[in-house]
Amino acid sequence: MRECFEVRDTDAGGRIGELTVPRADVTVETPALLPVINPNLDTIAPRRLATEFGAEILITNSYIIHGTEDVREEALEDGLHDLLDFPGAIMTDSGSFQLSEYGEIDVTTEEILEFQHEIGSDIATPVDIPTPPDVPRERAEDELETTQERLELAETVDTGDMLVSAPVQGSTYPDLRERAGRHADATNLDVFPVGAVVPLMNDYRYDDMVDAVAGAKRGLGADAPVHLFGAGHPMMFALGVAMGCDLFDSAAYALYARDDRYLTVRGTRHLEDLEYLPCSCPICTEHSPEELRALDDDARETELGAHNLHVTFEEIRRIKQAIRAGNLLELVEQRARAHPTMLDGYRTLLDHADQLEQSDPVSKGAFFYTSHESARRPEVVRHHRRLERLSVPDSLFLTEGNSARTDEFDDSWRVQPPFGPFPRALSKSYPLTAEVPDRTDRAALEAAAEGVSRLVEANPDAAITLGHRGWPAGVLERVPEAVERVDLDAE
Amino acid sequence: MRECFEVRDTDAGGRIGELTVPRADVTVETPALLPVINPNLDTIAPRRLATEFGAEILITNSYIIHGTEDVREEALEDGLHDLLDFPGAIMTDSGSFQLSEYGEIDVTTEEILEFQHEIGSDIATPVDIPTPPDVPRERAEDELETTQERLELAETVDTGDMLVSAPVQGSTYPDLRERAGRHADATNLDVFPVGAVVPLMNDYRYDDMVDAVAGAKRGLGADAPVHLFGAGHPMMFALGVAMGCDLFDSAAYALYARDDRYLTVRGTRHLEDLEYLPCSCPICTEHSPEELRALDDDARETELGAHNLHVTFEEIRRIKQAIRAGNLLELVEQRARAHPTMLDGYRTLLDHADQLEQSDPVSKGAFFYTSHESARRPEVVRHHRRLERLSVPDSLFLTEGNSARTDEFDDSWRVQPPFGPFPRALSKSYPLTAEVPDRTDRAALEAAAEGVSRLVEANPDAAITLGHRGWPAGVLERVPEAVERVDLDAE
Ligand SMILES: [Mg+2]
Ligand SMILES: [Mg+2]
Ligand SMILES: [Zn+2]
Ligand SMILES: [Zn+2]
Repeated sequence: MRECFEVRDTDAGGRIGELTVPRADVTVETPALLPVINPNLDTIAPRRLATEFGAEILITNSYIIHGTEDVREEALEDGLHDLLDFPGAIMTDSGSFQLSEYGEIDVTTEEILEFQHEIGSDIATPVDIPTPPDVPRERAEDELETTQERLELAETVDTGDMLVSAPVQGSTYPDLRERAGRHADATNLDVFPVGAVVPLMNDYRYDDMVDAVAGAKRGLGADAPVHLFGAGHPMMFALGVAMGCDLFDSAAYALYARDDRYLTVRGTRHLEDLEYLPCSCPICTEHSPEELRALDDDARETELGAHNLHVTFEEIRRIKQAIRAGNLLELVEQRARAHPTMLDGYRTLLDHADQLEQSDPVSKGAFFYTSHESARRPEVVRHHRRLERLSVPDSLFLTEGNSARTDEFDDSWRVQPPFGPFPRALSKSYPLTAEVPDRTDRAALEAAAEGVSRLVEANPDAAITLGHRGWPAGVLERVPEAVERVDLDAE
Repeated sequence: MRECFEVRDTDAGGRIGELTVPRADVTVETPALLPVINPNLDTIAPRRLATEFGAEILITNSYIIHGTEDVREEALEDGLHDLLDFPGAIMTDSGSFQLSEYGEIDVTTEEILEFQHEIGSDIATPVDIPTPPDVPRERAEDELETTQERLELAETVDTGDMLVSAPVQGSTYPDLRERAGRHADATNLDVFPVGAVVPLMNDYRYDDMVDAVAGAKRGLGADAPVHLFGAGHPMMFALGVAMGCDLFDSAAYALYARDDRYLTVRGTRHLEDLEYLPCSCPICTEHSPEELRALDDDARETELGAHNLHVTFEEIRRIKQAIRAGNLLELVEQRARAHPTMLDGYRTLLDHADQLEQSDPVSKGAFFYTSHESARRPEVVRHHRRLERLSVPDSLFLTEGNSARTDEFDDSWRVQPPFGPFPRALSKSYPLTAEVPDRTDRAALEAAAEGVSRLVEANPDAAITLGHRGWPAGVLERVPEAVERVDLDAE
């Protein structure tokens, strides 16, 4: 059991957790957003991040601090908390990203961790190798080996009560991500950033990002706090959380503000394109778009930065509430419509429904079927698996209709898309209490047919009849031939 | 041309318009939200509605004013604007709803309109018969006739520069709604409420609501300002606007607040169930859920009412921005995932894609394919119709691939799901610049196959070959047999 992290609630792969940060003497509730602070230029002062936005943790770059003499001296003398004037937890990044962009850093793992310790970091990061996507497998393996050696070295450094993160690399090879996750999990390190996903997100490759995270998660234990490193757009937080990520960092709120870009959960907008502000935050209720455009550069950047942070923290609260209410996947459903590549991400997430099912609660409020994709949710996968274990009488009528026909059959079960058949006694239990549209769809019917197949395959000797309401031939084809069919609509 | 209303911009069936209200000497931008004010108890003062929330118009009930002696006297003496202290436009409802709930009102059409005029209403409403859903057709027809007689009477009343609304009834009979719309449109009345949809919305029958509105819209001209009467939940505004509604009224913001209910665009939440506030409005950034719960009844009601109004007006701004940007249907896509019945509503909206297509701009920013439903959008319908008019060479290669094979064919066109085939010269024009997911779906493929069919049917003598990437047999079945098929993935 990892001491610094405790999972309090789960929904799909997502969870609400508590990350205990002993050096800062604070507990951070996850999912958490870590605003990225550049000590040389802050759009929103760290103190304001804490008091106005509720930030419990932030992240800053030890490489930049190291390289800026006056900042370095002040950090060494007074510590990061004083330097930044922030009361919560402070995580430091090692600068691996700069390493990959600008070439080798000439410090050792010990030195960089000790420096982070000296400046008062609460969570430090070793220098790993952030292997980009799509490199040859051999390179990904070689670089992963180097990263793993450094993590093993990091384990040996005495860092007191400072937490140390263990980045998980592996490029776009899910099996390498899994291997990296398993190795990192076996160290005594504390926090697990999934690294080098920024290039994927920059190219809107949310599908590949999901596969990379899914790989890392398979290797990491359920008690490992996972940081989706460099993921700062609120549009994709729900997807990341549903996959099992706990920490997100955002430089976007400030970088975008500098560029007159306005964040929304439906994507990024340019201030010049906005005739209306689709937001109720204190900035957007106080200003019109013209007023924002008329501000001088510094004021505009601050106001846009504050708006960007508001929508970012708002989405984190929305996600936490969704986990508590058990409707996180319903939120992901909505976010998946922000961009076709987000839909790719959601469709890929559902490839891992088996994996999500492991942490998905057995019972929640109500399952909402809100798209063809809903037919592939973990609850459906679980119900289908359950069908293989249910005992079945000699003759059984599975029906979408109301008539049980108990004179003709030993028993009658209900059939409901997307779940398929179930004994009437289960009607009141999750997920069979689902709210489904009147206008069903082919995906739901196909999933129901799959449910029938599972039941039939597990009970080859039972005589099973299916009473359906006008299922198309292409769907009925998926039901084993041994099943007799009755079209209730045709009767 | 209707003088009081001008359409400035459109997207699908939605539009941004200007409703000129001469008696108030204001122009109201639509889509607009009319907060409902009960003069006996206001949760948020009308003056505050204007200054803090930007309300340009509100609605109050003349029946309640008439029935409350001191209020009636003050309204007659000082006028509604003074009574309510509201600087914008004031619409009055006649009390038809009360009529239907509590039995006959004993005033005539002339009297009720004259009373509304006397108290200073800017937009008055005659007493119509709000026929409920699902009544026998004969009753719906009879009551519609009475409503129509009253509208004809209302035309004859001298109401000066006060606008008068003409409710469109017809129960759940779309053809009666259409007839009612056509009749109302032919009067000299000004604003067109689609009436008696509240019982549909109370039962989450968004599908039937869409059919009712679509019927009314077919009868009404494109220049008629349409009021979706009694629709106050922000979750369904985007759907209503996409259908062509311009005015919405909300009593919900106040009624729900009285009941500790918290509005979101994803549905209603009970304050007691909220551990986090999924909103950035000034109320939600200032308070935690516990703080809100700890307020006394009056203060809690006011704060929740203010939150409810913030999210309501925020959604109206978001919708207007979406119309400007040309991505209203992308917003509807997201809202459709709020509840399975909203999905029914969206699927029903797309039954009317032909109707929406008439006002949908020929060119917009970018078409985002974000669900199976996207395959039924008006842009796809339009492209398929266009295919019937394009001239085709003797031999043509339609291909999802890159190779044009011009040695074998006279010409080569691209094929892109969901649109189907198009000449390469159109690649840069809307909607063929669409962003589509890497992981396509059956609905997109079927729509593309439909496009191929349209082209083939319009050009029976052309020799057409389709190069597809592994389309399933069930999709290929939809392509006419005369088309030769090449599976590019199998080559
Ligand atoms: Mg991809
Ligand atoms: Mg229905
Ligand atoms: Zn804002
Ligand atoms: Zn709020």
